Amino acid sequence: MKIAQIQMSPLEGRFQSLEVARQMINEQVPQDTDLIALPEMFACPYQVKNFPQYAETEGGEMWQLCSAIAKERHCYFSAGSVPEAGEDGKVYNTAYVFGRDGSQIAKHRKVHLFDINIKDGQHFRESETLTAGDSVTTFETEFGTFGLAVCYDVRFPELFRLMALKGARLILVPASFNMTTGPAHWELTFRSQAMFSQAFVIATATSQADGASYRSYGHSLCADPWGQMIAELEDAPGVLLTDIDLSRADEVRRQLPLLTGRRTDVYRLEEV
Amino acid sequence: MKIAQIQMSPLEGRFQSLEVARQMINEQVPQDTDLIALPEMFACPYQVKNFPQYAETEGGEMWQLCSAIAKERHCYFSAGSVPEAGEDGKVYNTAYVFGRDGSQIAKHRKVHLFDINIKDGQHFRESETLTAGDSVTTFETEFGTFGLAVCYDVRFPELFRLMALKGARLILVPASFNMTTGPAHWELTFRSQAMFSQAFVIATATSQADGASYRSYGHSLCADPWGQMIAELEDAPGVLLTDIDLSRADEVRRQLPLLTGRRTDVYRLEEV
Repeated sequence: MKIAQIQMSPLEGRFQSLEVARQMINEQVPQDTDLIALPEMFACPYQVKNFPQYAETEGGEMWQLCSAIAKERHCYFSAGSVPEAGEDGKVYNTAYVFGRDGSQIAKHRKVHLFDINIKDGQHFRESETLTAGDSVTTFETEFGTFGLAVCYDVRFPELFRLMALKGARLILVPASFNMTTGPAHWELTFRSQAMFSQAFVIATATSQADGASYRSYGHSLCADPWGQMIAELEDAPGVLLTDIDLSRADEVRRQLPLLTGRRTDVYRLEEV
Repeated sequence: MKIAQIQMSPLEGRFQSLEVARQMINEQVPQDTDLIALPEMFACPYQVKNFPQYAETEGGEMWQLCSAIAKERHCYFSAGSVPEAGEDGKVYNTAYVFGRDGSQIAKHRKVHLFDINIKDGQHFRESETLTAGDSVTTFETEFGTFGLAVCYDVRFPELFRLMALKGARLILVPASFNMTTGPAHWELTFRSQAMFSQAFVIATATSQADGASYRSYGHSLCADPWGQMIAELEDAPGVLLTDIDLSRADEVRRQLPLLTGRRTDVYRLEEV
């Protein structure tokens, strides 16, 4: 399975940002790629005030353009995440995934909003303008079951465990850590979630942009079910190309049976 | 809080092994140490056939000698783990902790038995001679609540999450990874569990012994609630001395509120 992850910075206009992504896809992504993945908020500079301004409803113009890319390339397309204007008037940090025919096959609204306040470090409160989703998201593909989460969701082992238990052998995570949490936790978090879940984890980040109020750490990566790093970018824009074999997840789960070794008579984890 | 972790190899006799530990303590552990920790199966060469042979009941001779060390040093003493002969005739991989007065203040029977079979790597089946415990273990000290787990238990985020939710700001893990899982996962596992739990994790391992059928990776470590490595040994015998401030856990939990940020309306994790 051939994957291309697009690390890019959003511009001050959502269609311009999508155009950047499209150009990188056209120029740098081989035609036989099975899955293209974009970063969290790839078309909205990451500031709480921007989320409502850049929001559109499901099926809107941006959504249609993303669907068209999937169809045109005849590949799975994880369109990062975008601010979604819900029918309830609320705004969500939403990840859509499209199938090879351009139809939407998955949607995940970020479940854990990023509200942190680190001394001499990063401050951010997504909850000022965003509302959290309430689902554990997995979906079917010709390669088997995939999971889908957004950025800060990765800090909650419960969510990843549940995706793995629902059969996910690959988990897509559009993300954007910052210059405080990135150097400290980016690699540790994604590699360990891959190891605990015994699944591939595809984390696609925005690149570091000069002058942005939120400086993204970048470092888009692909980690394997053994917790090893397959490939990783640095902080500049770029395309990460990998070729993985999902049966590796089955092999790891057979050799080190963490999912069946859970003590469900000692603790119980379930979706509400 | 001053901690001393004793990395050592077991000998072919349990009292001889304890004597090695005692000598290292006498020669290398400062008198004002608050907590001394030994490795998993510190007095039983790690082979399934040895566990029943080396087992003794709670309160037996080894237990009494360990209690005496705690009392003599007037410190908390995590006596690694030992094969415990249960009153039910079964054998457990059991960690005892003694208080400053020599009384037993905690007991944890390894909940997840180590049964793995890695191609071209480690094979082991603890369940051939051991029975698993069935508790999530936390206990009170003058420094607050601690958690207690044994080795392979660390691979199950559910258990660590539950210890953290029960208030543990420090988690003791007598352990022994091997030359397959050690280089791949030792540091990743313990550092990430410290990061997810936002607690100190004190992992104390046996050292690598020439000729042992199970080659321990060693690398006893102390990780902080931010997931950083405070200190780590290599594979030779040695004593790891650290001085930690448990309020760091409160600070990290305030700045990056992972424990309160859990979506208990989306997933439920509980002890059975």
